[in-house]
Amino acid sequence: MVKAPTEEHPRPAFGWAARDSSGVLAPFNFSRRETGEKDVRFKVLYCGICHSDLHAIKNEWGSTIYPVVPGHEIVGVVTEVGSKVEKIKVGDKVGVGCMIGSCHSCDSCANNLENYCPKMILTYSAKYHDGTITYGGYSDIMVADERFIVRIPENLPLDAGAPLLCAGITVYSPLRYFGFDKPGTQVGIVGLGGLGHVAVKFAKAMGAKVTVISTSTSKKQEALEKLGADSFLVSRDQDQMQAAMGTLDGIIDTVSAVHPLLPLIGLLKSHGKLVMVGAPEKPLELPIFPLLMGRKIVAGSCIGGMKETQEMIDFAAEHNITADIEVIPADYVNTAMERLAKADVKYRFVIDVGNTLKSSN
Amino acid sequence: MVKAPTEEHPRPAFGWAARDSSGVLAPFNFSRRETGEKDVRFKVLYCGICHSDLHAIKNEWGSTIYPVVPGHEIVGVVTEVGSKVEKIKVGDKVGVGCMIGSCHSCDSCANNLENYCPKMILTYSAKYHDGTITYGGYSDIMVADERFIVRIPENLPLDAGAPLLCAGITVYSPLRYFGFDKPGTQVGIVGLGGLGHVAVKFAKAMGAKVTVISTSTSKKQEALEKLGADSFLVSRDQDQMQAAMGTLDGIIDTVSAVHPLLPLIGLLKSHGKLVMVGAPEKPLELPIFPLLMGRKIVAGSCIGGMKETQEMIDFAAEHNITADIEVIPADYVNTAMERLAKADVKYRFVIDVGNTLKSSN
Repeated sequence: MVKAPTEEHPRPAFGWAARDSSGVLAPFNFSRRETGEKDVRFKVLYCGICHSDLHAIKNEWGSTIYPVVPGHEIVGVVTEVGSKVEKIKVGDKVGVGCMIGSCHSCDSCANNLENYCPKMILTYSAKYHDGTITYGGYSDIMVADERFIVRIPENLPLDAGAPLLCAGITVYSPLRYFGFDKPGTQVGIVGLGGLGHVAVKFAKAMGAKVTVISTSTSKKQEALEKLGADSFLVSRDQDQMQAAMGTLDGIIDTVSAVHPLLPLIGLLKSHGKLVMVGAPEKPLELPIFPLLMGRKIVAGSCIGGMKETQEMIDFAAEHNITADIEVIPADYVNTAMERLAKADVKYRFVIDVGNTLKSSN
Repeated sequence: MVKAPTEEHPRPAFGWAARDSSGVLAPFNFSRRETGEKDVRFKVLYCGICHSDLHAIKNEWGSTIYPVVPGHEIVGVVTEVGSKVEKIKVGDKVGVGCMIGSCHSCDSCANNLENYCPKMILTYSAKYHDGTITYGGYSDIMVADERFIVRIPENLPLDAGAPLLCAGITVYSPLRYFGFDKPGTQVGIVGLGGLGHVAVKFAKAMGAKVTVISTSTSKKQEALEKLGADSFLVSRDQDQMQAAMGTLDGIIDTVSAVHPLLPLIGLLKSHGKLVMVGAPEKPLELPIFPLLMGRKIVAGSCIGGMKETQEMIDFAAEHNITADIEVIPADYVNTAMERLAKADVKYRFVIDVGNTLKSSN
């Protein structure tokens, strides 16, 4: 017999969930497990709203398990730790990102790449080891294995730091892996949204020269003056694009809408790398000749492992990198989702869970 | 006034040329330059027939300059060297591959990657530094700057070694650059033609475990028993493909017809690399999600630099690697082209230029 969400586990929990593909979020009572030997339990203070949350509540990727409590940019303060927890203590500021489990025995896990473990468990709308469904951070408490807990340095603001747990690591990891982190490297960032704006900050902090590539000039001033980009290209301006051909060592493409790759491949120098971190639902057209002529690469990258996520958070704290956010109360989430669908946010909504999530119990 | 091909240069030359996009080859009188200070002149003995030659004579890439003398897998014996030639002497066995010029001053040239120089000059149907048109190896003599001359080791057969100058370097370079050359690496080779069959040999000699991926079983026995591949996958057999998912570190894809990439991306392990060396005329469909989920790469690679081409030839001689060839007389070229268009050759035609090319003069 399938148990009700409130009866699966011993600890009562409360959050906001979508019940069906309308995607409307509403108050939701459920439960969370006891704090296991290796578990860290924390009171959620803030949770970022990622564009994936919007896809998930509407089941746009076809994998949503309802009811779904979204949220995988979760920070808070530790209230309990299991007896075998080594690095975290009560009172610590911590976070959880996109995953809360993996197999711990494959090559990827052995190499601190839990994100590429075939049995990686997502923070919400997935099946945990015990068969129960995972619930995300639009909720009052979280509990997770220490391996999937990130320590938040004291000087990193919790609200503006929360989005780094997904948006931050999503761009930080490929900047490192594909070698865009050398001073003077010419890096393009396509799309200036939740991912793109932190990509600019990380790339600049690593010493790269950053070109923002956007469909219109509307974000030019902000990109150059506020975010510190070195230059700005309007992708629809053929003269600008032509003049910039062959100038970039690497590109991080954050756009998840279907869009042409040819102009971006053209911007690369020989041996340059175009890295997709957005996930268009349909295949994109890949012209092969331009790849061959410059030994160019089109690659994908998906978040990062836990070791690297901690490294990213520590790097962010050291370089004062946070997301630009709009803090909202919990009962604003449905409006926030509507605005997010229209890209009407600079650049990330963060729910003030600690102060505004009120249980109706 | 444009000079006739016979009057452009002082040295008479003879070969076979196509005059228009019918692609029919016929005897052709032209001329070659004097041996310059840094030039090496050689009597052509053998020339391989590359699939590119077929595209070129029919102007299928739209860049052919008629009349075109094809051929860029050219070997022969040196008859003259210029006063500043350092490493080549009369009587040496030498070869010329796909290019005979570059700018000598860009980053690519400085890094022995003349093949990625924006001003790289193709061996035929291109404009040389002096403005004259380049003519390929279906001809009695060649002359080229020493930088673009490859020394052929004594023990490498000239006829079966000729195709290595294009087919060989085209697969050798990405095997090295993308790190498929470590013993035990699981490498897939897609397509068992002129490129694919030498790719199997080079990958095996480097210590890789090689899987040949082909559309039908017709080449299975040959791949396993003659070429030494470790396994064979029929790409149209979904059960076989499914069972092999996530098993390959890298793939060299030699197919130049439009074909689906998704099954090949699926064969890769996480962080695996699919390298295109064939050049489909139309864009291929690139699904982004599977790239993201395994941090996979789709790349292109185009021949190799001259330093690496010499290294490849030396490696081939050391490991007794040659192409499997069918030697033909010069007057068989039109029939050979018809058979090549039907993939009716195992695996490369090589023209016996030295013994069969007869000038009508």
